[in-house]
Amino acid sequence: MTARIDSFEVRVFETETRSTRDHHGHRHPGPLAAAHEALVTVRDSEGAEGHVLTPVRNVREDAFADPLLRGLVGRPVMSVEQVMRDVVMAQRGNPVDIADRRIAVVDELLWDLIGVRAGAPVWRLLGGAQERVRAYASTMCGDEIEGGLATPEDYARFARQLVEQGYRAIKLHTWFPPVAFAPSVKRDIEACAAVREAVGPDVDLMLDGYHWYNRQEALTIGRAIEELGFRWFEEPMEEVSITAYRWLSDQLDIPVIGPETASGRNLSRGDWAHFGAVDILRIGPQNGGGITSSMKALHMAESLGMTCEIHGNGAASLAVVAATYASQFYERGLLHPHSDYDWLPPHLSGQVDPLDDDGGVTLHERPGIGQQIDLDHIRRHTVRAYEVTA
Amino acid sequence: MTARIDSFEVRVFETETRSTRDHHGHRHPGPLAAAHEALVTVRDSEGAEGHVLTPVRNVREDAFADPLLRGLVGRPVMSVEQVMRDVVMAQRGNPVDIADRRIAVVDELLWDLIGVRAGAPVWRLLGGAQERVRAYASTMCGDEIEGGLATPEDYARFARQLVEQGYRAIKLHTWFPPVAFAPSVKRDIEACAAVREAVGPDVDLMLDGYHWYNRQEALTIGRAIEELGFRWFEEPMEEVSITAYRWLSDQLDIPVIGPETASGRNLSRGDWAHFGAVDILRIGPQNGGGITSSMKALHMAESLGMTCEIHGNGAASLAVVAATYASQFYERGLLHPHSDYDWLPPHLSGQVDPLDDDGGVTLHERPGIGQQIDLDHIRRHTVRAYEVTA
Repeated sequence: MTARIDSFEVRVFETETRSTRDHHGHRHPGPLAAAHEALVTVRDSEGAEGHVLTPVRNVREDAFADPLLRGLVGRPVMSVEQVMRDVVMAQRGNPVDIADRRIAVVDELLWDLIGVRAGAPVWRLLGGAQERVRAYASTMCGDEIEGGLATPEDYARFARQLVEQGYRAIKLHTWFPPVAFAPSVKRDIEACAAVREAVGPDVDLMLDGYHWYNRQEALTIGRAIEELGFRWFEEPMEEVSITAYRWLSDQLDIPVIGPETASGRNLSRGDWAHFGAVDILRIGPQNGGGITSSMKALHMAESLGMTCEIHGNGAASLAVVAATYASQFYERGLLHPHSDYDWLPPHLSGQVDPLDDDGGVTLHERPGIGQQIDLDHIRRHTVRAYEVTA
Repeated sequence: MTARIDSFEVRVFETETRSTRDHHGHRHPGPLAAAHEALVTVRDSEGAEGHVLTPVRNVREDAFADPLLRGLVGRPVMSVEQVMRDVVMAQRGNPVDIADRRIAVVDELLWDLIGVRAGAPVWRLLGGAQERVRAYASTMCGDEIEGGLATPEDYARFARQLVEQGYRAIKLHTWFPPVAFAPSVKRDIEACAAVREAVGPDVDLMLDGYHWYNRQEALTIGRAIEELGFRWFEEPMEEVSITAYRWLSDQLDIPVIGPETASGRNLSRGDWAHFGAVDILRIGPQNGGGITSSMKALHMAESLGMTCEIHGNGAASLAVVAATYASQFYERGLLHPHSDYDWLPPHLSGQVDPLDDDGGVTLHERPGIGQQIDLDHIRRHTVRAYEVTA
């Protein structure tokens, strides 16, 4: 008999953080501070376990245990389509509680367990194309912090440091409200020019700036970074209008990439590809509905002669990037001059994505998704927990 | 360390058959006769094995061992993309020896080994959507055999028998040269009408006839079977012109399905989908480059709101059909009044696709692709063999 989902366990635990979030959700460096995070565990009928770490907001019991997890007990572990079909169908009537980000937690959890059961890293089970992936340094958004990312010169100085650390590709996130002078087409272009000047012609550069520019503003920036030899132009307009993105892609030679945030998993990416809205597709496990839907978008992209770049850092994103040849980069970050990405919070025993001297990340060989979680620490620092059983 | 491909072994063995092939490759019933078939085995660095059965023509040593298998020794087992990328790149310079059908043998072999290593059926690892699939009875092509498939009435009588056996869906292959009166638009339509009359309105019917009709002939047949309530219309024209299929699909309401035979794996299916050449996509592991490329075509189809039906019977096709919700049928056949599909040749110890009373096939739970091969029989009846090592 095939192994079945026996129970889920959700633990909220105390740990430490060195970043804060503004009210738009953008991360900035912060002082070392106590923080809460959640560990979700799935256990199958043969006692095997899968684990996923997720923000506490994703696991509120009345929104996560009940409409989502409880219905999955008894489902076969090795048949991720059955589980994901069920949660996608449940999403229609519960679009807030069963959000794509919560769906993604379930999907990653299952893949971790599938990998553990199979005794293989998930990135290999999914295709295992790339044993080493190229990373790009993904900066935090601009700010007004002294010596931070407040000026084009700040970005230039930081870019030089990143190249010294080994990075061969850098993606700038520029300024957003509530920064006083944001958004600014002029300043975004100045930052891009300063960074290109600082790192020279051989470092790949990408821009991911303010997401609510209009067509003309986007075109102005696009032309400027096209001339600066940037590698791609990401999300300058709200990612809901295929028409607007099609218009922009038609004007520009520089590849336009998206949509990172569109709902609808791989199906919305089908529309963006079919209607020529972008040159490079984009999806990520966390906000694209999980590893399964991300893989489908990658397979579609390959079938249409496109590439598809994967949003976000961490074990699941890394697994998806490495799985096929359709992704060219792993997003490593977010990074800031005042922040140490390689600092480990106490609930982790190792980094999944150590950077090598030439801007790459070599994939691990651990069964499952590959996170290195200190389960003992989490058990000792659990502040509340619940179980979901039949 | 990840397990690596250590060696391949190819055995040509003596077995028995009850079918013959005409010079176009179409199968017809034949007397019980001696026959040769091949077993390909992959062995990894930890001693695990995967197996695939294939026609002898696929394993000629100078075409299979050398340009194809020898370069794969040392590759990681659990990273099918690495191996398939390599064979696809090698195919460009060796398009005859490294044909899609030989590539497919390698891909299925790896998936069988991956499933064995993971201790899971491949159909579950690939998504495991459907624990039971609907089958359609796929007839052999028409002939001039007394009591065979020589007349519309023969098809009607056989269709009634198939429904009695449990089938709830039937696909007709009609007449091809060298049958004296083939092709015939009129007779194809008569056969379809006779079968609909025989089985009533509740059995799903499909037509897969002569593949070299022109647009007008195809439209005439399509309109007729549209009125007979057929479920799909398959390959009435040569599957090289997207333009011709787009024209036909635009005229007809009945879904046009294809391409079964197009080269180019999932990438050619990308073109057929993008340009609206068909309503339902089609690919199969055997002639579409394997399980991996078939899965990519399915994932693309789902991402574009399409379905994709899988060509061919056997363990690999069954695994691909069951993996997602994007396929609605398993092709069980080929069937003929004088032929017993459930007859087991002596090198098999069981059928992978037993039909139930309501036209379905319940999936097995065997690790790997799920073939039930009698390895002892094959060893005792081997007529020649070769090994491929580093």
